[in-house]
Amino acid sequence: MRAPRVLRLTALVAGLGLASAGFAGAAADPVTGVAAPAAAPAAPAAFTPTAGLPGQRNAVTDVPGVQVGQVQNRTSPFLTGTSVLYFPTMAVASVDQRGGAPATKETDLLSPLNSNPGVNAVQLGGSSMYGLSATDGIIRWLEDRGEGVPLGSVGVAPIVPAADIYDLGRGGDIKARTGPEWGYVAASNVAGAAVRQGAFGGGTGARAGGLKGGVGTASVYLGDGIYVGAVVVVNSAGSPVDPKTCQLLGAQFGIGDEFAGLKAPTQAECQTVASAAKSDDLNTTIAVVVTNAPLEKAAAQRMSGNAHDGMARAIRPIHTLADGDTVFAVSTGQGEPLRINDPADSRQLNAIFGAGADTLSRAIAKAMLSADSVGGITSYCDRYPSACADVPQAAKWRAAGPAKEMTPRLFDDARQALQVTPLPR
Amino acid sequence: MRAPRVLRLTALVAGLGLASAGFAGAAADPVTGVAAPAAAPAAPAAFTPTAGLPGQRNAVTDVPGVQVGQVQNRTSPFLTGTSVLYFPTMAVASVDQRGGAPATKETDLLSPLNSNPGVNAVQLGGSSMYGLSATDGIIRWLEDRGEGVPLGSVGVAPIVPAADIYDLGRGGDIKARTGPEWGYVAASNVAGAAVRQGAFGGGTGARAGGLKGGVGTASVYLGDGIYVGAVVVVNSAGSPVDPKTCQLLGAQFGIGDEFAGLKAPTQAECQTVASAAKSDDLNTTIAVVVTNAPLEKAAAQRMSGNAHDGMARAIRPIHTLADGDTVFAVSTGQGEPLRINDPADSRQLNAIFGAGADTLSRAIAKAMLSADSVGGITSYCDRYPSACADVPQAAKWRAAGPAKEMTPRLFDDARQALQVTPLPR
Repeated sequence: MRAPRVLRLTALVAGLGLASAGFAGAAADPVTGVAAPAAAPAAPAAFTPTAGLPGQRNAVTDVPGVQVGQVQNRTSPFLTGTSVLYFPTMAVASVDQRGGAPATKETDLLSPLNSNPGVNAVQLGGSSMYGLSATDGIIRWLEDRGEGVPLGSVGVAPIVPAADIYDLGRGGDIKARTGPEWGYVAASNVAGAAVRQGAFGGGTGARAGGLKGGVGTASVYLGDGIYVGAVVVVNSAGSPVDPKTCQLLGAQFGIGDEFAGLKAPTQAECQTVASAAKSDDLNTTIAVVVTNAPLEKAAAQRMSGNAHDGMARAIRPIHTLADGDTVFAVSTGQGEPLRINDPADSRQLNAIFGAGADTLSRAIAKAMLSADSVGGITSYCDRYPSACADVPQAAKWRAAGPAKEMTPRLFDDARQALQVTPLPR
Repeated sequence: MRAPRVLRLTALVAGLGLASAGFAGAAADPVTGVAAPAAAPAAPAAFTPTAGLPGQRNAVTDVPGVQVGQVQNRTSPFLTGTSVLYFPTMAVASVDQRGGAPATKETDLLSPLNSNPGVNAVQLGGSSMYGLSATDGIIRWLEDRGEGVPLGSVGVAPIVPAADIYDLGRGGDIKARTGPEWGYVAASNVAGAAVRQGAFGGGTGARAGGLKGGVGTASVYLGDGIYVGAVVVVNSAGSPVDPKTCQLLGAQFGIGDEFAGLKAPTQAECQTVASAAKSDDLNTTIAVVVTNAPLEKAAAQRMSGNAHDGMARAIRPIHTLADGDTVFAVSTGQGEPLRINDPADSRQLNAIFGAGADTLSRAIAKAMLSADSVGGITSYCDRYPSACADVPQAAKWRAAGPAKEMTPRLFDDARQALQVTPLPR
């Protein structure tokens, strides 16, 4: 016997573009049902979220139950790093792996057909398949805190799925790469705070359609306490730039004033097309979308799939055979979950799924605007300066939030912390 | 334009239970089409394979292009290890993940929809999700040899999918576990030789239906140069023992004299049922089936799925929510591959798939017969001594082949070899 649902999120329906106090005067998007106010409200001293607008930080950390930690090194021959999303309360998660050349770990357990009840963290990292080793440091950090699937008196099994981007050798040396120590440092620095965007964390070595890629994040408040957030590392073979106008494809989905001041580049700037990535290059765009609405695991899987649509709108082409595009979806919500096969939940789920896709599109544009030119890869704003002349917020995204620069000292300390039981002599 | 097929394996059809010189006098199995002679031929000085019988070593290393390396430590508080299959010529591979609680790495790229052209190695390890870190040592060993997907002047990306079993704490300490150094040692000791079976390598800490599990292997020659081999780590929640007769379920598929002397246990021995695994235990049976027939990737995927049938016949129940059962299938064959959607290839493919399932069933029985009682877990042969009294070959399986005992010295040397570029000061 299952307990009757105590949390039906009926208020959420009212918050999604229907006639309700929360959305009075706001025009609902005909596709997603999410209201998109024409103008953003002035930021009050004490932030009050407005449905249809970003949360306080416009970051995945606006979603209750999500923290982010990042580490990187940008000094030659290094140009790589890793980002970790940490869920203090184990969170239901699933995945949709769609690009043709993935580097992933612990994705099988995320199938709704498998019994895993949730994840402790997700890694979005650099250093390609080598960088999957960074999860071992995250796992150890969690183990030391007693977090993971409980194993009785034995200990815990921390669950940390991961996907990594291809950035090998972009700093000059394939062996200048992340490892368990990096994951340990990233995990040790998680915070429910602003998230540094651009060429940091897992986005340090990223390149997208020949321009500098990076890590980006965004959020939206859906009303009634429900948020949707996204974090993405943009490293695509295809371009996040409209080939006709040279505008960022993802920016068209902006809400509030997040892209205020962003212009179409001058025709002169646009005429010289950015050099496309070589066709034999390996790439990958990876992301996590999160909501604090409680989702069953199958709904999380569907949310991850729908989020790929947001990737498709912001990058063209996407999901090529040279991309390892992978999206994780996570629900930090507690209580009776929303279910795919419950007709009463359909409207709420579609609103959340649509918001996941749009938030991911926005995060992609923010990653591109935040990135600075580094490692000989020109950023969007350096390539099209006329577009970015009046976008001071991009500099803030690039500077906000903790992202540790990896040092020999941090590395040595982490290595020490990672010791396990020595072999018997 | 594709070159016309130069290798159609037409001879293979003739070798699979049809009227041919190779099978003269041999009765064909009505299901698999594989001949199963009633008696094994005397082993000649120079081994000549006989279709329908095991290869020279009755091990996965009978398949051309396959080497195996193993490492373990059986001294308290350790009781774990890892096994690696190495393919000197990158081999087409796929996977079918079916149990409900998997620990896996780099399985997404094995989808036939993804572009990965092949793998360099596969790890079947202990230490559960912690043990996936052992792949990093295998990866480094391959990188140092220049093996992997070529990345132009950058280097290589070695491809090493993995699945691990749950054996945490069985030696007494959850932190007494494998890691990158273990994978490096296992990879450094690969050989195309006999494979040590029982509580060694990835099977060191294994337990199956309350009895000691372990690693097992078997092979069959299909004629015309084509082999099928399997290696398995048996660590199932369900039992590999028939509850009525207490016989090993997998032994009924024995070929030649591999199970010669194996008897049904006495009724007295059988009456005391082995204590079943606790229902909250985590488990997992993992395997690799290999053939040197050239397979397209989709055919490898199907071979891995069919091999789960062999697991189902040898263990009951299997694929529970507490098992992470995963089977990889690998083709080391060169030349034009056999294709699922080519009707001319169906008979050959079905014979290979069926042989994969049967070989896996046999390998499961061999693992159980090879295991010794260790870590307080009683082996099949210690539990049912009357069954094993006349099975001297089990002691040989337990002793044959290289399986390195991990030492502090080996660990330190491996750790040194795993150094990457130091961080800039």
